[in-house]
Amino acid sequence: MRFPAPVALTWIADLIKAELLGNSTSMATGINEIHRVEKGDLVFVDHPKYYDKCLKSAASFIIINTRAVEIPEGKALLVVDNPFEAYVTIVNHFRPFQPAGSAISETAVIGEGTYIAPNVTIGHHVQIGKDCIIQPNVSILDHCIIGNNVIIQSGTVIGSDAFYYNTKKDREVWYKKMPSCGRVVIEDFVEIGAGCTIDRGVSHDTLIGQGTKIDNMVHIGHDTIIGKNCLFAAQVGIAGATTIEDGVVLWGQVGVSKTLTIGKNAVVLAQSGVPSSLEGGKTYFGSPTEDASIKRRELVWIKRIPEIWERIKNLQ
Amino acid sequence: MRFPAPVALTWIADLIKAELLGNSTSMATGINEIHRVEKGDLVFVDHPKYYDKCLKSAASFIIINTRAVEIPEGKALLVVDNPFEAYVTIVNHFRPFQPAGSAISETAVIGEGTYIAPNVTIGHHVQIGKDCIIQPNVSILDHCIIGNNVIIQSGTVIGSDAFYYNTKKDREVWYKKMPSCGRVVIEDFVEIGAGCTIDRGVSHDTLIGQGTKIDNMVHIGHDTIIGKNCLFAAQVGIAGATTIEDGVVLWGQVGVSKTLTIGKNAVVLAQSGVPSSLEGGKTYFGSPTEDASIKRRELVWIKRIPEIWERIKNLQ
Amino acid sequence: MRFPAPVALTWIADLIKAELLGNSTSMATGINEIHRVEKGDLVFVDHPKYYDKCLKSAASFIIINTRAVEIPEGKALLVVDNPFEAYVTIVNHFRPFQPAGSAISETAVIGEGTYIAPNVTIGHHVQIGKDCIIQPNVSILDHCIIGNNVIIQSGTVIGSDAFYYNTKKDREVWYKKMPSCGRVVIEDFVEIGAGCTIDRGVSHDTLIGQGTKIDNMVHIGHDTIIGKNCLFAAQVGIAGATTIEDGVVLWGQVGVSKTLTIGKNAVVLAQSGVPSSLEGGKTYFGSPTEDASIKRRELVWIKRIPEIWERIKNLQ
Repeated sequence: MRFPAPVALTWIADLIKAELLGNSTSMATGINEIHRVEKGDLVFVDHPKYYDKCLKSAASFIIINTRAVEIPEGKALLVVDNPFEAYVTIVNHFRPFQPAGSAISETAVIGEGTYIAPNVTIGHHVQIGKDCIIQPNVSILDHCIIGNNVIIQSGTVIGSDAFYYNTKKDREVWYKKMPSCGRVVIEDFVEIGAGCTIDRGVSHDTLIGQGTKIDNMVHIGHDTIIGKNCLFAAQVGIAGATTIEDGVVLWGQVGVSKTLTIGKNAVVLAQSGVPSSLEGGKTYFGSPTEDASIKRRELVWIKRIPEIWERIKNLQ
Repeated sequence: MRFPAPVALTWIADLIKAELLGNSTSMATGINEIHRVEKGDLVFVDHPKYYDKCLKSAASFIIINTRAVEIPEGKALLVVDNPFEAYVTIVNHFRPFQPAGSAISETAVIGEGTYIAPNVTIGHHVQIGKDCIIQPNVSILDHCIIGNNVIIQSGTVIGSDAFYYNTKKDREVWYKKMPSCGRVVIEDFVEIGAGCTIDRGVSHDTLIGQGTKIDNMVHIGHDTIIGKNCLFAAQVGIAGATTIEDGVVLWGQVGVSKTLTIGKNAVVLAQSGVPSSLEGGKTYFGSPTEDASIKRRELVWIKRIPEIWERIKNLQ
Repeated sequence: MRFPAPVALTWIADLIKAELLGNSTSMATGINEIHRVEKGDLVFVDHPKYYDKCLKSAASFIIINTRAVEIPEGKALLVVDNPFEAYVTIVNHFRPFQPAGSAISETAVIGEGTYIAPNVTIGHHVQIGKDCIIQPNVSILDHCIIGNNVIIQSGTVIGSDAFYYNTKKDREVWYKKMPSCGRVVIEDFVEIGAGCTIDRGVSHDTLIGQGTKIDNMVHIGHDTIIGKNCLFAAQVGIAGATTIEDGVVLWGQVGVSKTLTIGKNAVVLAQSGVPSSLEGGKTYFGSPTEDASIKRRELVWIKRIPEIWERIKNLQ
């Protein structure tokens, strides 16, 4: 999340009651979860296993629960007992929960020629471009941005919260919600089918690139970046913080795991499961996915096992 | 789509600025996409690869981008530069986009004893029979037809647009929406679970036969024909223009590809993927599906590979 | 379903015009379908194949279509021609269909600090605790119970009817709906994503235990019991009357069959299909599921088939 304007690090330290070490005169320009950090960002880390990753990330300011690390050149530490709670405090300050008074928020901006059907809910600070069609029972939640000539079909949800938790198994409630302060950004000429759910970024944006078409009941996780002119058939599910490059085709019921990349113009056949990154320009099949021609040959080989068994018996 | 009344071919030719060749005195009774054409229909074709298929189809009048084909006996050609745009022009003329003024359209007809819950949206020209139950947050879109004693549970969408595009990869936006002018027709005693999406036909009707029961989060594609007394468990997905005959059972998360036929009383076990037509009266499993008993035996054979390996080592 | 107060068996017998045999002075405390019966319950059975199971179940009073069985000590029979119709009559008497006059029923009880977004529907006799967030276009149907600090995201349906039918293939409509008289009970600190569907119990309760977190588009069937601190990723589907113990993790698109048990802290990897009970504390993969390490080794063995083929050729 970008802050509305750069914020003095000392002010942040006061807000979360942190001890400030290192370059304390800086201004923070935003806050992000580790998978999508940028220069000027605050980030948090509460486990020694991830200290190094966070300190070496693009983030400039690290909310951390130790003093015993070397501060990288030009960066600063904000030392607190509970970095997760500090992160939540900052996010809630800049993105406070705003109950809705009406189905279409008075702070939403809706472009000319855009049709909003009955029983649609549009949250605070939403922007919708020109000549869009928003069908009945759609929910577009706070801060989401929608371009021009976008179609969103009935029952679809844009901007649901990330499925993202702080986990500690030594307390009664194991999973604590990390508030989602990112947005969903949908570019021009995108079409989204009925009954889809597009999660907002937990800290960054979930992005759907220009001209991409999405069929019914597709789920897209938080902070996922989808390229231009992609085609996703019904019931596809894409986990969080994944990157799908331009022109990718995912057929029905494909599942894609988190934080991976599918390269340009790749095609993934129906019901496949993608556990790790795929090179562009090829066709894949299977769960876990393989090159489709290799997978097909494998299915033929499996059919030969009884014959193999016969041959061995004859040899014996 | 049937036209409200037969339309002079010359009038159509004027509308789309086409050159009319062949039997120009005829009347067109409807317009359809190639997979569901009937006599009296207009159809369009814009790629030489499909010229022959369209000319030989049941359609009587072919919107085409060439003069260099033989006109079949009694048929007519409407020659234009861009047959897809011509198709869109005709469809938009007969099915213009009608924004909704209220959640329940004043042109909807709702039978006696039918209960419509709060937050339901019912579009223009929808017909709903007697003694139906329509639960909260359901969307029933324009022109859909629902029989008697039908139950539709919460959040379900009836009549979302087809996932159907005209594709050209040499332009900025690769996929252009083909407007859906078909309907969804649901017969008596059908029950549809919560969170389902039933697409309207792109040009014909999507049909759900009498007494068929559908669990939650089932997706049914455009122009698909479902028989009587079928049973579809949760999260089943069926692609477009497919035919499912009477009494078919699909268990949870089954995926069915497009334009195929599943025969009467076939059973497809959970999570299977159906890539091509299946004979009726049998049980299937796997992705891609096979006869369930063959598939089960295959799983046993796979478990024997380590033993095969041992035996070969001994032979060597 | 518990009755509001114990009901004389003779009164029930009158209601369904049954002949009462055995301990006719008893009071019935509830009615349940066979998979979740308790002492004091009425149950019904209409097929000789299941007579014995019902007579020996925990249920005290059996609605049955025969006189020719031995009545277990202390129990009673209610003999009718059509036990299914008798069951429906009793359920409809105690849980009559109540149309909703407004989106938020005046009989719903909503706790302090709970936020209800626009376009939410809340049915009769629903109870929602304190400090909950109910996002737009959610449907919470009659009699459901929701604890404190619960979050339900947009478009989700709580309390849809069970997918549960009485089947007879010798009539025109094969499947007749068994009315759902159970509830959905959601404990404190549960979070449910967008576009989920949680079915009510057909006769008992569907329960989601404290602190369990559920991602988008998850389906949970009727009478299913989910433990505490479980984690279900997007597009998981769980069939009816299943038991998921505490701390179970189901990754994306997992399917779980009905009436089975998944033991404490089990992990099921993405896209797996669970056909039967799984022991706790282990990780599973595949459709059908196996221990994940065995399944992974199997995938490696399959890749060796061509080499096996080569070796046999050399031996020959």
